Order: sequence, then structure tokens, then C-alpha cells
Amino acid sequence: MRKKNGFKMTAPKAVILLSGGLDSTTTLYYAQKQRYQCFALIFNYGQRHHKEIQHAKKIAKLAGVHYRVMKIDLPWKGSSLLDRNKKVPHLRSLSEIAREIPSTYVPARNTIFLSFAVSYAEAIGAEAVFIGANAIDFSGYPDCRPSFYRAFQKIIATGTKAGVAAAASRKPGTVPSIKIITPLIHLTKPQIVALGRRLHAPLELTWSCYLGGKRPCGKCDSCRLREKGLGKE
Amino acid sequence: MRKKNGFKMTAPKAVILLSGGLDSTTTLYYAQKQRYQCFALIFNYGQRHHKEIQHAKKIAKLAGVHYRVMKIDLPWKGSSLLDRNKKVPHLRSLSEIAREIPSTYVPARNTIFLSFAVSYAEAIGAEAVFIGANAIDFSGYPDCRPSFYRAFQKIIATGTKAGVAAAASRKPGTVPSIKIITPLIHLTKPQIVALGRRLHAPLELTWSCYLGGKRPCGKCDSCRLREKGLGKE
Repeated sequence: MRKKNGFKMTAPKAVILLSGGLDSTTTLYYAQKQRYQCFALIFNYGQRHHKEIQHAKKIAKLAGVHYRVMKIDLPWKGSSLLDRNKKVPHLRSLSEIAREIPSTYVPARNTIFLSFAVSYAEAIGAEAVFIGANAIDFSGYPDCRPSFYRAFQKIIATGTKAGVAAAASRKPGTVPSIKIITPLIHLTKPQIVALGRRLHAPLELTWSCYLGGKRPCGKCDSCRLREKGLGKE
Repeated sequence: MRKKNGFKMTAPKAVILLSGGLDSTTTLYYAQKQRYQCFALIFNYGQRHHKEIQHAKKIAKLAGVHYRVMKIDLPWKGSSLLDRNKKVPHLRSLSEIAREIPSTYVPARNTIFLSFAVSYAEAIGAEAVFIGANAIDFSGYPDCRPSFYRAFQKIIATGTKAGVAAAASRKPGTVPSIKIITPLIHLTKPQIVALGRRLHAPLELTWSCYLGGKRPCGKCDSCRLREKGLGKE
């Protein structure tokens, strides 16, 4: 049997949302470990900086997976993650970070990302979409919680050709639908880091900081959560 | 009180998905009749032709609503609606059209459209998203059926700031969420045309044909359904 990237050609395909951070990188390596043929989807959606995109590309190359950078022009601003004139929250304690939806929230961001990932998955016949969302040590974004992903699974079942075909199949399980897989959703940041290390994910190549300086600022919510994961908090 | 477009400034805002066809044009006029301040969202997603975009813009201008054309670069093809090398089904009977998902299906298209519409709605503080989906005289697309829109409502409730705030409100109904409204979903094509005429929607300006010729081809599924609506079938 022909092989590609070390996998049999019959390995099921999966689309992986890759931002270049700790979580998505660990997720990519997790999906590879599960023997999926991985297709990384990287979004350029007008972030304040392009650093995370560069890191994501490096990581995809190192992992030896196919990747694609998708440009999305979100013309409506309002989030401090997109607008350089707005301040990103900084030096908040972990309990403050968890308390409310922060100004870095981008309206319906993960809904948009997942929509494209599911479209891509249908187009290439992938059976899974992996996203490194995490609802324990996270920034309070609503679209990182299990209930959102359960709802999205229903979108696939009702609104896609793949989902409808799977639901209509007489022998359940024989026609694959597209499954949203969130392997990190119930893990703490230190557990995610431990998993990433166990999977030999290149955590040193990841970029978490919301700002795009030469070095991570160490003060934004994302840096604070990363530090907790790396045991520096 | 200041007025804009004939409405009080306090009129609730709504985002309307406008393709330039019969259904979305009728929907726009329906939303205006319901006293919403309308923001039309027109997608340029790599259709075979730009004719429908031009028609949609004309209609938005005539209706006097704010509009925005969003370009989406869907790099994966596979649908005959996007790929000029593929044949669009033609001269099918209405029962054939209803029977199966046709080659014009674009993976997760309405999921992508709604994601952007909901993001836009959150960004401008709109309370509703209108989409002219129709599950009676339609082309068998899964993302045109009521179950899909019910599932999407759950996406808003679980995954957006607006939805979560509304759900957490102590007095239900006082904090507006974003409602997906599908006024045509249970109407036949002739009923849609009748509604459009009653609302004085400029149906003569609409474009339905999947192809981009000087005149509608009269043979594609979309032309056939339109003809039924106009009483020519």
C-alpha cells in the first residue's frame, strides 16, 4: 500500500485549527498520534500581528502536515485583538481572567473558524475537525466551552451533506459524518503542557502572546495562562 | 428624535443576508416592514459569475439600506456553483430537484454565511439576522431546513457574548440576544412571490439564474424554481 507522511493512504483525514499557540500545537500532535492524516488550517483574520501565523506555519512544516493559510477580512472591529488602538488587558490575576468575557473577544470567532473547517473537511472528505479549545484555564470566551461544541455538532448533523448522509444511513456508523474533537477541553494548562511534552510537540516554537513584540510581553491574559502552564505562575 | 432612513434611531438593527435573488429580496423588504434598521450583507464567495452581486447591490441601494459586500476566498472547489468547469444540473423537473442534494451544494455555505452575519450582528448590536431560506420549493440543500436554523440558534446561545448575556439575564427578554429569522421557510415559491409583491419588493431587479449570461438560462434548478414562483411552470 502506498504511504504518505508515514501513514497509509487510507488513514482518515482530519482538519486541525492551528493558531501557533500551545493548545493548538498540542492538538495537532494529538491528532497525528491518533493516526489522522492532518490538514492544518491557519487563519489570518486581521490579528494585531502576524507572529502567530509565522509560528503556526513553522510548526505545520515541522510536523510534516499539509497546511493552508486562510485570509478572512473581518471588516467590523471592536475587539482589542484586532484593533491596535485598543488596549489588551494586562497583569490580571488568573481569577480575574476567568471572571468575564474580555475585550479580546472577537464576535463569533470560533463559529467562523469552525464553519470554514467543516466546509474544508467536507470538500476533502475528512472525518474530523480538531480544535484546541479549553474551558478550564481560559479567557472566559463563550466559544471555548463544551456546550458550544455540542451545538456545533448539531449544525453538522442538520446542515451539511456529510452529516445528513450519516444520519440517514441505515447502519449507524458506516457512513462517516464530521466529528468536532476537542481533546483539551477539560484539561488545565499544566496538563496541556504535560500532554504536549509527552507527544513531543515543539512547544518551544509556539507563540501565545496577544501582542507581536520581539519577545512575549508576559503581561497579557494569554501570556499569564501560558506561564501557568509552564509552571511559572 | 433624530431619524435615519425614515426610522427612529432606536429601531432595532438587523443583518439581512442578501444574494440578489427573489427570496432574499423579499426577506429584506419583510424585515424593513417589521421596522428593523437593515444592514444587508452580500457575499462574493467565488460564484461562477458576479451578476447576482451586482443585482444585490442595486436592490440594497433601492431599498435605502446600508450594505456591505464581503469577499470570501473559499480555496476548496467541488461545487458546480463555484467551478466553471463543472456542469450545473439543468432541465430537471421540480420533483427531481427536490429529491437529492445537487452538485451546486457548497459545503457548509450557509453555516459560513450565518457565522459572519452573527459576528456582524454582534459587532453592530443587531438583534436579528434574516435569511431567506426556504424548505418547500427548494433545491434540497440541507442548510435551508428549519432544523438547521434551530441548531444555529443554539450556537448563538452558547457561543456568543450576546447570547450568553441574554441567557444569563435574570429577567428573560430584557437583554436581547440575536435571533435568526427565516420568514420564508414554510412558504411555496408562488407564496414568496405573492409576499414580495405585497411588500412592493423590486422582484424585477432580482437575479436567480446560476449561470451569468445576459439573460437567465431558464434551465437550471434556480430558474425552474423561479418560474414556478412566477406562475410560468
